[in-house]
Amino acid sequence: MNKTFTLKNVYVENTASVVGPTEGAGPLGDLFDVVIPDDIYGENSWEKAERKMLLESMGLCMNKSNYQTEDFDMILAGDLLGQLISANFAARDLLIPFVGVFGACSTFTLSIGLGSLLVESGFMNRVLAGASSHHETAEKTFRFPTELGVQRKATATWTMSGAGTVILGGVGPVRVSEVTFGRVVDYGLKDANHLGAAMAPAAFDTLNRHLTNLGKKPEDYDLIATGDLGSVGHIMLKHLMGDKSLGSGNLTDCGLLIYDTRQDTHAGASGCGASACVFSSHFFPLLVKGHINRLLLIATGALFGQTTAQQKESIPSIAHAVCFERVSDQ
Amino acid sequence: MNKTFTLKNVYVENTASVVGPTEGAGPLGDLFDVVIPDDIYGENSWEKAERKMLLESMGLCMNKSNYQTEDFDMILAGDLLGQLISANFAARDLLIPFVGVFGACSTFTLSIGLGSLLVESGFMNRVLAGASSHHETAEKTFRFPTELGVQRKATATWTMSGAGTVILGGVGPVRVSEVTFGRVVDYGLKDANHLGAAMAPAAFDTLNRHLTNLGKKPEDYDLIATGDLGSVGHIMLKHLMGDKSLGSGNLTDCGLLIYDTRQDTHAGASGCGASACVFSSHFFPLLVKGHINRLLLIATGALFGQTTAQQKESIPSIAHAVCFERVSDQ
Repeated sequence: MNKTFTLKNVYVENTASVVGPTEGAGPLGDLFDVVIPDDIYGENSWEKAERKMLLESMGLCMNKSNYQTEDFDMILAGDLLGQLISANFAARDLLIPFVGVFGACSTFTLSIGLGSLLVESGFMNRVLAGASSHHETAEKTFRFPTELGVQRKATATWTMSGAGTVILGGVGPVRVSEVTFGRVVDYGLKDANHLGAAMAPAAFDTLNRHLTNLGKKPEDYDLIATGDLGSVGHIMLKHLMGDKSLGSGNLTDCGLLIYDTRQDTHAGASGCGASACVFSSHFFPLLVKGHINRLLLIATGALFGQTTAQQKESIPSIAHAVCFERVSDQ
Repeated sequence: MNKTFTLKNVYVENTASVVGPTEGAGPLGDLFDVVIPDDIYGENSWEKAERKMLLESMGLCMNKSNYQTEDFDMILAGDLLGQLISANFAARDLLIPFVGVFGACSTFTLSIGLGSLLVESGFMNRVLAGASSHHETAEKTFRFPTELGVQRKATATWTMSGAGTVILGGVGPVRVSEVTFGRVVDYGLKDANHLGAAMAPAAFDTLNRHLTNLGKKPEDYDLIATGDLGSVGHIMLKHLMGDKSLGSGNLTDCGLLIYDTRQDTHAGASGCGASACVFSSHFFPLLVKGHINRLLLIATGALFGQTTAQQKESIPSIAHAVCFERVSDQ
């Protein structure tokens, strides 16, 4: 049980990202493939806008690599909304077998982890793995509709609008080399405006198991990036990992990279889109160019729902880890 | 693309089912492992009762085969509720890596299909695959809270209360031999009280691809069972498959087997629990005893959500097919 899987033959062939205007105005703004002009994106609901972004990221990815839908064995994708309506409705427009996965904001590495095992096994040649989130659809689901103008806590993260997709296949140089699936961890926290605190223990559990299983140390990676712990959760993870010599400068969080602190987004970005878009637009090019050679991405998810929040239950969390490695001999 | 995967080394080692009182009063009542006394099951919410049923089915399964949590590499599970709260919260009590999957009522064969590929590949030795639904939690999510007493349409299915789990591993005699993952199909139907009609085309698409990929005919299976099309959807599937010589007596639907027509459950049972509990309690023993030797189970799911229903969108559907085969030389 609790294995870390090491892979040899799976590569991220390409990536694509589509983000909202607030994300486009942030420090990574120039790196995203598409920055949409407003959060509604020509649709009549935010849900349709989110779906359109996810579908567009999938199409862009395929176009970049000159693939058609028939070149893919499967789509693995998910989002934050009840019954995965973004992923399901996006997949409706592509005649590719579809698997919906839910890991809240950990969905991106969950879909990559599963997809990579299916490609490595030889069952599949090529899969699409993606995830999306949208500020307006998520806030109304998990906290308050933004029209209410409820004041946000300083610990609250800002669910980002963004969709990211990758192609997993056989073309290098960025190999998926290690995968550790998360366990559900619950320290009893209940505040939906403080999700970094709820998720930090899950990130710790997965990172710890990943390193222990492989006999590795944090320094063995050029970069360790969590998904969307935000500024508070990031510090909590550093505390939890105190004895593992973290804080050596190679630990970051995707949620900290998306907004400028002047954008008033409080503890940083969150949402499935955070790890999906930062990996697709920022980390992947760094790996391709050899600026970093080993990245451990640990997307984190808070597994609560509208109903469990209303019923005053705690917030269980999970984190899935995937290592991406530049292979030089390709 | 659109492959059917044929497997050699994955077996359903054991099964367990936990159902509600209405299901216990039906024709399969004596076959379920546990019939709970009422739909609340000693909890203070229906959601907690559903979660308890799913967790209990997992524990029962492990106990039957004398396994501990550390004998499992992964749990793959899902349910109908927003953010998969039943599966997430059930997995919290088991320290096993967890993957949440959503295929609405197709979730049972989705988790078995994915889990089987992971075991066949050698990455994993043993996984738990499960799914749950609950009449009260589902009705309030997708239609009306039952307290309202809204009159039900004759075409409406009755979301069943039930959880089913299987152990996928290496011990026979019931082998998982074929897996076809579904594509999202949408014929434009919008009535949440007529889901059999929305899902029949998805069942047709998957069954058709499964047979075509393998060069097989319906008669090559002792039994073909859809998940929860109910009485109307079942007839529609027969019409769609007209030229494939179905109607030869080997096509059934799990939703038709759970209730007696005198139970006033309209078009029959639906919910993730339908295929999960009918397989676990009824089909699996038939396979073990050799009363049937080849079963094709096609669980069907309507991929709509509360939000898409309120926004008057259509109901996309999906179906995942898994063939179970008795291997005589074990």
